[in-house]
Amino acid sequence: MPGSHVGADVWVSEYITPYDVYQHGVKEVLAARRTAFQAMHIVDCGTYGKALVLDGKWQSCTGDEFLYHEPLVHPACVSHGAPRTVLILGGGEGATLREVLRWKSVERVVMVDIDGEVVEACRQHLPEMHQGAFDDPRSEVVIGDALDYLDACPPEWDVIISDLSDPIEEGPSFKLFTREYFEKCRRALRAGGRFVVQAGPTSPGEMRLHVRLINTLAAVFGHVASYSSHVPTYAAPWGFALAADQPLETRPDPAAVDAVLDAGTTGEFRMFDGVTLLGLMQIPKHIRQAIAAETQVYTLTEPPRFFGTGVAESETSPSA
Amino acid sequence: MPGSHVGADVWVSEYITPYDVYQHGVKEVLAARRTAFQAMHIVDCGTYGKALVLDGKWQSCTGDEFLYHEPLVHPACVSHGAPRTVLILGGGEGATLREVLRWKSVERVVMVDIDGEVVEACRQHLPEMHQGAFDDPRSEVVIGDALDYLDACPPEWDVIISDLSDPIEEGPSFKLFTREYFEKCRRALRAGGRFVVQAGPTSPGEMRLHVRLINTLAAVFGHVASYSSHVPTYAAPWGFALAADQPLETRPDPAAVDAVLDAGTTGEFRMFDGVTLLGLMQIPKHIRQAIAAETQVYTLTEPPRFFGTGVAESETSPSA
Amino acid sequence: MPGSHVGADVWVSEYITPYDVYQHGVKEVLAARRTAFQAMHIVDCGTYGKALVLDGKWQSCTGDEFLYHEPLVHPACVSHGAPRTVLILGGGEGATLREVLRWKSVERVVMVDIDGEVVEACRQHLPEMHQGAFDDPRSEVVIGDALDYLDACPPEWDVIISDLSDPIEEGPSFKLFTREYFEKCRRALRAGGRFVVQAGPTSPGEMRLHVRLINTLAAVFGHVASYSSHVPTYAAPWGFALAADQPLETRPDPAAVDAVLDAGTTGEFRMFDGVTLLGLMQIPKHIRQAIAAETQVYTLTEPPRFFGTGVAESETSPSA
Amino acid sequence: MPGSHVGADVWVSEYITPYDVYQHGVKEVLAARRTAFQAMHIVDCGTYGKALVLDGKWQSCTGDEFLYHEPLVHPACVSHGAPRTVLILGGGEGATLREVLRWKSVERVVMVDIDGEVVEACRQHLPEMHQGAFDDPRSEVVIGDALDYLDACPPEWDVIISDLSDPIEEGPSFKLFTREYFEKCRRALRAGGRFVVQAGPTSPGEMRLHVRLINTLAAVFGHVASYSSHVPTYAAPWGFALAADQPLETRPDPAAVDAVLDAGTTGEFRMFDGVTLLGLMQIPKHIRQAIAAETQVYTLTEPPRFFGTGVAESETSPSA
Repeated sequence: MPGSHVGADVWVSEYITPYDVYQHGVKEVLAARRTAFQAMHIVDCGTYGKALVLDGKWQSCTGDEFLYHEPLVHPACVSHGAPRTVLILGGGEGATLREVLRWKSVERVVMVDIDGEVVEACRQHLPEMHQGAFDDPRSEVVIGDALDYLDACPPEWDVIISDLSDPIEEGPSFKLFTREYFEKCRRALRAGGRFVVQAGPTSPGEMRLHVRLINTLAAVFGHVASYSSHVPTYAAPWGFALAADQPLETRPDPAAVDAVLDAGTTGEFRMFDGVTLLGLMQIPKHIRQAIAAETQVYTLTEPPRFFGTGVAESETSPSA
Repeated sequence: MPGSHVGADVWVSEYITPYDVYQHGVKEVLAARRTAFQAMHIVDCGTYGKALVLDGKWQSCTGDEFLYHEPLVHPACVSHGAPRTVLILGGGEGATLREVLRWKSVERVVMVDIDGEVVEACRQHLPEMHQGAFDDPRSEVVIGDALDYLDACPPEWDVIISDLSDPIEEGPSFKLFTREYFEKCRRALRAGGRFVVQAGPTSPGEMRLHVRLINTLAAVFGHVASYSSHVPTYAAPWGFALAADQPLETRPDPAAVDAVLDAGTTGEFRMFDGVTLLGLMQIPKHIRQAIAAETQVYTLTEPPRFFGTGVAESETSPSA
Repeated sequence: MPGSHVGADVWVSEYITPYDVYQHGVKEVLAARRTAFQAMHIVDCGTYGKALVLDGKWQSCTGDEFLYHEPLVHPACVSHGAPRTVLILGGGEGATLREVLRWKSVERVVMVDIDGEVVEACRQHLPEMHQGAFDDPRSEVVIGDALDYLDACPPEWDVIISDLSDPIEEGPSFKLFTREYFEKCRRALRAGGRFVVQAGPTSPGEMRLHVRLINTLAAVFGHVASYSSHVPTYAAPWGFALAADQPLETRPDPAAVDAVLDAGTTGEFRMFDGVTLLGLMQIPKHIRQAIAAETQVYTLTEPPRFFGTGVAESETSPSA
Repeated sequence: MPGSHVGADVWVSEYITPYDVYQHGVKEVLAARRTAFQAMHIVDCGTYGKALVLDGKWQSCTGDEFLYHEPLVHPACVSHGAPRTVLILGGGEGATLREVLRWKSVERVVMVDIDGEVVEACRQHLPEMHQGAFDDPRSEVVIGDALDYLDACPPEWDVIISDLSDPIEEGPSFKLFTREYFEKCRRALRAGGRFVVQAGPTSPGEMRLHVRLINTLAAVFGHVASYSSHVPTYAAPWGFALAADQPLETRPDPAAVDAVLDAGTTGEFRMFDGVTLLGLMQIPKHIRQAIAAETQVYTLTEPPRFFGTGVAESETSPSA
């Protein structure tokens, strides 16, 4: 409310854990709809700008999405070197697409999202996110099921990016965090391909999903690297997993990375460069230890059940 | 409420920004008092354990305090190499003291906190934090004003750690985030001394305090390094500033750091080691750019006014 | 979220007092707009149905609006006996209009609301409220300023109903809670006319507005009666003021009232009848005492400043 | 936080319905304990003073408790005329005891509460509530089970007052809202005795408990009267049930009641007198209709399951 003190009338309220609730004051509701798949809100909040919220989980907002989308896309692309074909699974806002299109080597990028209503609403209400990426001639948007698409496609991708909403039970995504799904992704890669997954929070109270995803990927790919980025509106450091059959460089030379970026990309990065990449890949000791101790993998018969809308369950471990 | 679903009856509610409120469900109120200096609550929350809350700002909790206290203490100590004398300004919970005492080289550590009631309540209710550090024969607790103590003490400290609550206007700390204060700290160091400050959030919407603190320190010390650690209950990456008159190593060799830690410290670190330190020191591009662009310093006549209890003001910048 | 436990993602949050906040979980946002005059939300909440919220103040909802609109309209109409002309000032939802149109004697009812966008949104999204009242041939809606309308109209009204949003400083209504306004209303009445005002909460912590409004009306009209109705989503008993130059019956005979209603109205009342009216008019001792003790009146130079969006001020008195 | 704007750090949060949450800002936590029976908080809130909260349900607060305790006690006592012996079941705060002791005719009043820790905490922290009633020579406090006490006591009571916390499943009270319990109460009355029960909210969205309690009492007693009082911090009008084997006066003469009170009681009532009683007994049409339509009774095998801490269930009916 302009001129007022705190005073939002409407708040988006997200349970981070059953005892920790993050509330964001809404200045304007831009879209609010129950789609065929999920409850969608696009809201204009105060400090952090416009946000997409699906099934009560904050997806991304204009004020800090670069801290999610740049680390999601670029470590995999740098690791590959010069991706020509990129497949995005999920990615409704179009910001992942935007980052992929910075790579001059990219000739074709396909984004497969199950929820066309969300994609359309983001295209309309979140131009800061996609920045026209949907209209790039190299882009193709497929509205459909990621599993179906993977089953049908030949092994043609240099990079596959799994940018799905969290695997809450009520939501459409939990099957896409399993060994079976990751095996399909691996089969769809070209030789030398890279696979990257948004892989849940890495905060001490909630890191089980991340740790088990890393272990699940290690059962499928020859090499896996965990890394995290600070995304403030997630109220948690956010984890990613980079996987390939080739060894992954976890102590890259910043100058060499900068040289690759200077030659191979366009536009200005906000958070990413060689120094940032070196920092991202050095994960703290407690996360390394938890990964080393993990023994279980997610499968279609034992999928993740992530904490969703206010009900505690087993994926949320208490703090030690 | 054991056995119930969400259901805390009592919540601690913290405004992170005027539009972003983080609420923590309370299982038990352990202490609640207005001290001579501030409103104090010690509460047992659900997922993240026991927390100290001062003037409505979450200070630290047992579930993730290691992500704050280890990076606060050890980069400075590693940088020094073998600190014998350490001064802690603030540090009520005793967890900073606990970390300092890991260093075998330490002969004497003085903690100066203005609020004896908070220190006593933490000693009683938060043993997980101090772990007996107050009773170590090398420890000395002084209840008093940090500025007075600095004025009176000779230049005898190898490491000074400024572990103060945020400089909100209503609180007791805002003078201790100024050039004048940092000059006193510098004068109190021995040759080769290191100074480290908890230096505010480094999230995009709230990083002005951090950036200006780095610039303020750069006006006093020959060398300053910014770094951040993910502390989930802060709902922000948290910044620190390490300062010295000697050059600071920002790309340390992990193996060499581990060798120093193995030889020089006792006990088991949770998040800190050589790899972690290398990661901490690689700060993302947008923070480096903001620091490079900053021109102002905090002084006693122009101190910081950090966002406190629900009222927006100038230190909270909107997202770009 | 259908099938879920608590779990609204979006909440409407209303400060009842600076320390008491009532939050309503939203199942669907039906409309959200900043009109030329105020911030408007129409939301579908859980237990209490669809609600209109203006400038952060809950106006009415389908689940309990009958507890507001029936007592607003019918005591004045019963007191008059057979109103032919009725003027509604405010009344955006159309529910006041709906109740007036039950009276067979009514030939013409004019509703003057300043905010045509709110009226239009209510017509579209809240059919449960207006139930077609806007389309009744006896109804006329004027979008404009109540003061201007009153200045221009002859003394032609049997009943005038002031159904305005609370006089918060940020809102458009505070001038319409003053002696000058009430004098205009009195001049616009026919002989034997009745004037009724929604007159704020009558809860102990917030009754100053109500009490002073009664006193202000008593400076203008020969007779004034205070009464209250329980409206649960207001988190307060809600006060009304009935004013006339003729004596007002405060101990009506229920059977006689029922006879008037049976003969003079159509449709089924939900909460109102003779017994209900007898109960409404018996106000508790503490409210009678507060009214008897009040000495001040609201004027254009000393208008009410009602507690609005999160800032305490003088109209909110502490509990005794 | 004195001097601050809104800004409580700690809030008591009560689910009124699964979609309506009332939050009260806490200025000071006076007591917080898990007793043998329930979670207890005594807190000093802002506008409405000090409150007792049991198992997350707001019991009463100093700012509006008179709107609960005066109507709980005095209609039954007026109806009896000159009670000499009074039994209070529940009543931890001592405010019900305080009101009973106003009656000069009272020679003996026994209060039976299951939770001695709550009674002791109220005695210590809520003197505004009991006002010394525990020390009156006519008072006797029994810590024990109401059912056991009723089984053991002869039919010696002129008035029995059931002042129990709501029958939430997690709490200790739900058996005491059943026909079996009411039969025990009836047997414990002297000839001409009166029984009164706090009988749940009468708001449209939550009135099932009240309505069914009235019907349950009608299966036990010859005559039952429902009435409600506005208690703002309950965010609902609150229902009571008065029961006896003699006809109950529902249209009392205010002057006659005032004469009884003047002669028979001491001290100053805040809300209660003859006019207030006349008003209380005239319940609105929709509540009368719901009572008339109710067919079921609560028994030990089918007890009430009131909405407790955040989980919707059958006692909470949606609005019509």
